[in-house]
Amino acid sequence: MVESRKPISIAQAVNKVMEYKLAGQVEWVSLEESQHRFLAQDITATHDVPHFNRSPYDGFALRSKDTIEASVHGPLKFEVVEELAAGMVSTVPVQQNQAVRIMTGAQMPAGCDAVIMLELTKELDIDGRKYISFKRSLKEGENVSFQGEDARLGDILVKKGAYINPGIIGLLATFGYAEVPVAVKPVIGLFATGSELLDANEPLQPGKIRNSNSPAISAQIRRAGGEVRYYGKLKDEFETTYTAISKALEEVDLLITTGGVSVGDFDLLPDVYQKLGADVLFNKVAMRPGSVTTVAVYQNKFLFGLSGNPSACYVGFELFARPIIRTMLFSEQPHLRKETAQLAKDVLKPNPFTRLLRTQLYYESSQLKVTPSGVDKSNITTSLAGANSLTVLPGGTRNFRSGDTVDILLLEDQQGSKCPW
Amino acid sequence: MVESRKPISIAQAVNKVMEYKLAGQVEWVSLEESQHRFLAQDITATHDVPHFNRSPYDGFALRSKDTIEASVHGPLKFEVVEELAAGMVSTVPVQQNQAVRIMTGAQMPAGCDAVIMLELTKELDIDGRKYISFKRSLKEGENVSFQGEDARLGDILVKKGAYINPGIIGLLATFGYAEVPVAVKPVIGLFATGSELLDANEPLQPGKIRNSNSPAISAQIRRAGGEVRYYGKLKDEFETTYTAISKALEEVDLLITTGGVSVGDFDLLPDVYQKLGADVLFNKVAMRPGSVTTVAVYQNKFLFGLSGNPSACYVGFELFARPIIRTMLFSEQPHLRKETAQLAKDVLKPNPFTRLLRTQLYYESSQLKVTPSGVDKSNITTSLAGANSLTVLPGGTRNFRSGDTVDILLLEDQQGSKCPW
Repeated sequence: MVESRKPISIAQAVNKVMEYKLAGQVEWVSLEESQHRFLAQDITATHDVPHFNRSPYDGFALRSKDTIEASVHGPLKFEVVEELAAGMVSTVPVQQNQAVRIMTGAQMPAGCDAVIMLELTKELDIDGRKYISFKRSLKEGENVSFQGEDARLGDILVKKGAYINPGIIGLLATFGYAEVPVAVKPVIGLFATGSELLDANEPLQPGKIRNSNSPAISAQIRRAGGEVRYYGKLKDEFETTYTAISKALEEVDLLITTGGVSVGDFDLLPDVYQKLGADVLFNKVAMRPGSVTTVAVYQNKFLFGLSGNPSACYVGFELFARPIIRTMLFSEQPHLRKETAQLAKDVLKPNPFTRLLRTQLYYESSQLKVTPSGVDKSNITTSLAGANSLTVLPGGTRNFRSGDTVDILLLEDQQGSKCPW
Repeated sequence: MVESRKPISIAQAVNKVMEYKLAGQVEWVSLEESQHRFLAQDITATHDVPHFNRSPYDGFALRSKDTIEASVHGPLKFEVVEELAAGMVSTVPVQQNQAVRIMTGAQMPAGCDAVIMLELTKELDIDGRKYISFKRSLKEGENVSFQGEDARLGDILVKKGAYINPGIIGLLATFGYAEVPVAVKPVIGLFATGSELLDANEPLQPGKIRNSNSPAISAQIRRAGGEVRYYGKLKDEFETTYTAISKALEEVDLLITTGGVSVGDFDLLPDVYQKLGADVLFNKVAMRPGSVTTVAVYQNKFLFGLSGNPSACYVGFELFARPIIRTMLFSEQPHLRKETAQLAKDVLKPNPFTRLLRTQLYYESSQLKVTPSGVDKSNITTSLAGANSLTVLPGGTRNFRSGDTVDILLLEDQQGSKCPW
C-alpha cells in the first residue's frame, strides 16, 4: 500500500517548526571553556578603556606648558626624575622642566599632560643625573590615550547569541569575565533504525551497510552547538521502538530518528507518533532530497523523523533541526546563512520539488561561485564530505545554467540568517 | 637608546619561517573524537559502494526477460515469493513470472535483474497467495544500483590534511573507520610578559590592565589546531625569564611569548634569545600592526616573540605561527586563505609598511566585500572580536577607496592557501 501524503513547501515546514519556541538556558563556564560556545547574555564593558590616561608610546611624560620655548635652535633640557614601566604608577610629583621616562601602556604621571616620543629625544648624563634634551614643543594631550577613549563603562560590546571566537575571548578577558555566561547545550537524542545497519567497527555482511547517519548527524549536532545522546539502533519491532522512544523523550530536548519514516512495510515511526499522541506537523516536504522528513511535537519536545538516506538525513537536519538548536543558543539568526552565488556548472534535470544540491562554494575574482560537489562517480560518495553549502534550486520545469544566480545556504558558518525562506 | 632593527617584508619573514619543516605525527582516535581534527593519511574506499547490487526504490525485483509482453492492454501477473527488507538476503530462487517484494537499499535477489517501482504495481491476494500485476516491461538493469557504481575499492576519497567535518565523519563510518588516523596536535607553549598584567579574575588596579593576549592566543592556537600549554606570566627579570623559557622549550613544539620584544628598557626577550644561542630569523617586519614580531629557532624549535599589543599579537600569530601548526597537521595549504574582495569604505591613512586591517568580510549580490571592523570608538576595543578577515593594504603613499579590489586573508576558514605572499 502506498500511503498518500500531502507535501508542504519548505517555508511552510520551517514556519511550523519555528512556531514552537524552546527557551535557552544560561550556565557559567570558565573563559577557556567558553570558546566555541554561544553567549547567553550581552557582554558589556565593565570599565572604561583605557581605564586610566596612558602613554601609547615609549617616551617621556612631561608638562606641555614647560615645552613652549623648545625649537630646533633652542633645545630644552629636562631632568628625568622617574622611570615608569607599564603597570607602575608615579610616586614623584613632576615639577617644572622635569620629565618621567614612560613605557608604552604605562599610566600618565600626575601633573603630566603630554608625551614626547623616545626617538625625538637625546639622553644625557650630567653629574650622575639623567636628562633629556629635545627640540620641539608639545600640545596639551599630545600622545596621551585618554580614559574611556576606546570604550565606556556600560557599552554593549558583543550581543548574546554570538559564537565565541578568539577575539571575543580576548575581550572577555579584558573586562574580567573569568567566568562567561553561555547557553546550555541543548541535548539531542538520536536513534538509528534499520536492520540493515552495521556499526563502523563491524565487518561487512551481505546485504548490509554501515550506519553512517548516526555518526554524521552526531557531528552535525555538535557543529550546530548541541550535545548528542546516542541511544543506538532500534530493531524493526513496534513495541520495543515505542518504549525506547517514550523513555528517551524524557531525557532530551529534541529526539531524532533516522530511517523508518517512509512508506516501506518496516517504517514504524508514523505509528509510534500516533500511539504517543504526538502532533505531527508534517510528514512530507516538497523538497529533494528529504521529502519524507517528518516532524512531530509531543509535550513541548520535538520528534524528528529523518530519512535513512544519508543526503536526505543531512539536509533534513540542517533545515529543520539546526534552527531549533540555534534558537536555544540565543541566536536571532538561527537558520543556515543564505546568500547568492553564481552557478559554475549547468544543472539540467528539472524536478517538481525544490532541490537542495550539495555544493562547493568558492571565490573567484571577488565573486561567489558554486559547483555541485557530487557530479562524477566517486563524488557521489564524497559529495557530503566536500559540500560547504546547499544550493537551492526552485522546483519546476526549468534547467539551471552556468552563470545563473542561485540562492545558497552556508553549512560551515556561524552567522546564520533570520529566515532564509 | 633606540636599537636599530632592519625590517624585512612579510613575504621574506614567512619564507624564513617556512624553511624549517617540522614534521607532523599520526595518532588514532575514535570516530567521534576525530571531528574537528585533521586527517593524517589519505582515506581510501575499503570496499565498493554499493558493495552489492541493490534496489534504489521500494518495489518488486524480478527477471526483466519475463516482462517483455507486459503492456497497458496486457498486464502481467507475478507471484510474490518473498519479502526483503534492507539488510535481508533472499533465500528462495526466483523462477519465471515470480517477483520479490524489495525495500529501498535491499540486496537484489539472485536471478533478478530489474525492479519495478511499487507505485506501478497493483497488489492482489488470490487464494491466500500474494500477486502483483503491472502494465509495462522492464529492461535488464532497470532500477538497480550496481556494485561499485558510486565508488571502487581503493579510490582515494579524502586527502590527508583535511579538516574533519560531519560529511567526512559519515564517510569514515561508511568505510569502517571506527578509529581514524589524525594528526597529533602540536604543543604550543605560551608565556605572557609584562608587570602591568592582571589575570581575568583579578580586580583592576591603577596603571594595570588585564592580560587579554594569553586567553586570545590560546583560543587562536586551538582554532589553528594546536594544543595550548600556558606557563603563566613572566616577571621583568632576566634570569627567571631565561630559566623558565629554557625549561619550557623542552616540553613544546613552539614557544610563544607576548610582550617584551620591543625596545623598551624592560624588553628582555632579545637578550634571552642571545643567551640561548637561538638563531633569530627576524626581529622586525615591515607591517602594521606587529612590526616588532620576532621569530627565532633553537634546536629545531620555534621561539615566537609576539608584540604585547593585542592586535599585533593576534596578527603575528596568524601570519607566522598558524602556518607552522597547520604544516604539522599535514596541510598543504597551511597559510590563511587568501582571496580578493571589494573595499566598502575609504581607508585614507597611508603607511610606509604593509597594513593588516581587521575587517568584516560580507557578501552582497554574490560579491565579496570588506569593511574595517574597528572604525568608530567602541569598535576599536571590539575590532578583533568582529573581525573575520585581515585586509592587506600594501605600504606606500596611496589611499584606498571604497570599491577598490583588495587582498584579504580569511580567519575562520579551514581551507587555507599554499602561500599568500
